Amino acid sequence: MNNAIDLHQKLALIADHWHPRVIAELNDIQFKVVKFEGDFVWHKHDDTDEAFLVIQGEMIVEFRDRVVRVGEGQLFVVPKGIEHITRAERECHALIIEPRGVVNTGEAGGELTAPLDDWI
Amino acid sequence: MNNAIDLHQKLALIADHWHPRVIAELNDIQFKVVKFEGDFVWHKHDDTDEAFLVIQGEMIVEFRDRVVRVGEGQLFVVPKGIEHITRAERECHALIIEPRGVVNTGEAGGELTAPLDDWI
Repeated sequence: MNNAIDLHQKLALIADHWHPRVIAELNDIQFKVVKFEGDFVWHKHDDTDEAFLVIQGEMIVEFRDRVVRVGEGQLFVVPKGIEHITRAERECHALIIEPRGVVNTGEAGGELTAPLDDWI
Repeated sequence: MNNAIDLHQKLALIADHWHPRVIAELNDIQFKVVKFEGDFVWHKHDDTDEAFLVIQGEMIVEFRDRVVRVGEGQLFVVPKGIEHITRAERECHALIIEPRGVVNTGEAGGELTAPLDDWI
């Protein structure tokens, strides 16, 4: 059985951006920590919602028709099937909660696609 | 579509203990905020893991054979089917992540059993 997992300690191990690392699982759900800055890519996840909890900084989730700012200590759930892009003006640290097997770039692919099941 | 959900703002609306309130859903998973202090009851959840992220304070998860302390900014997943009791020496604020329909007291029941799907 695992011990308690410190989010800041895990985040301190990460030096790159847009590369989520798994830190825990709940049934088929994974908890991943990630750091990012700048613009991601437009994409969607047809089979699942995707939750972000901002640990440090602020992230922007842009949809085709609106923009949501998610600040420190705030939770936001991106609904499945909806195109979106994530951004951060300064480095942002977040916890992602989503099912095992979700590719970060969805159907879009490209160079920001991160490996699955990369534990830290 | 929802906006970002501020955990501290939601917690500020809660005056009672051991009564989780739903703030968001990810597929069939619910995010619930809760305040508690003192001892809960021994129980287990046979069908699901249960995750706690401590937002403020410290919680203790006691098993029959060990004790885990979960501090602020730490995540802990209680494995399914394992008897446990949660405690806090001082008021603790936490985010619970678990499937829709999980009864807080598991199979134990009793007066601390909270209603399901109580949104805040």
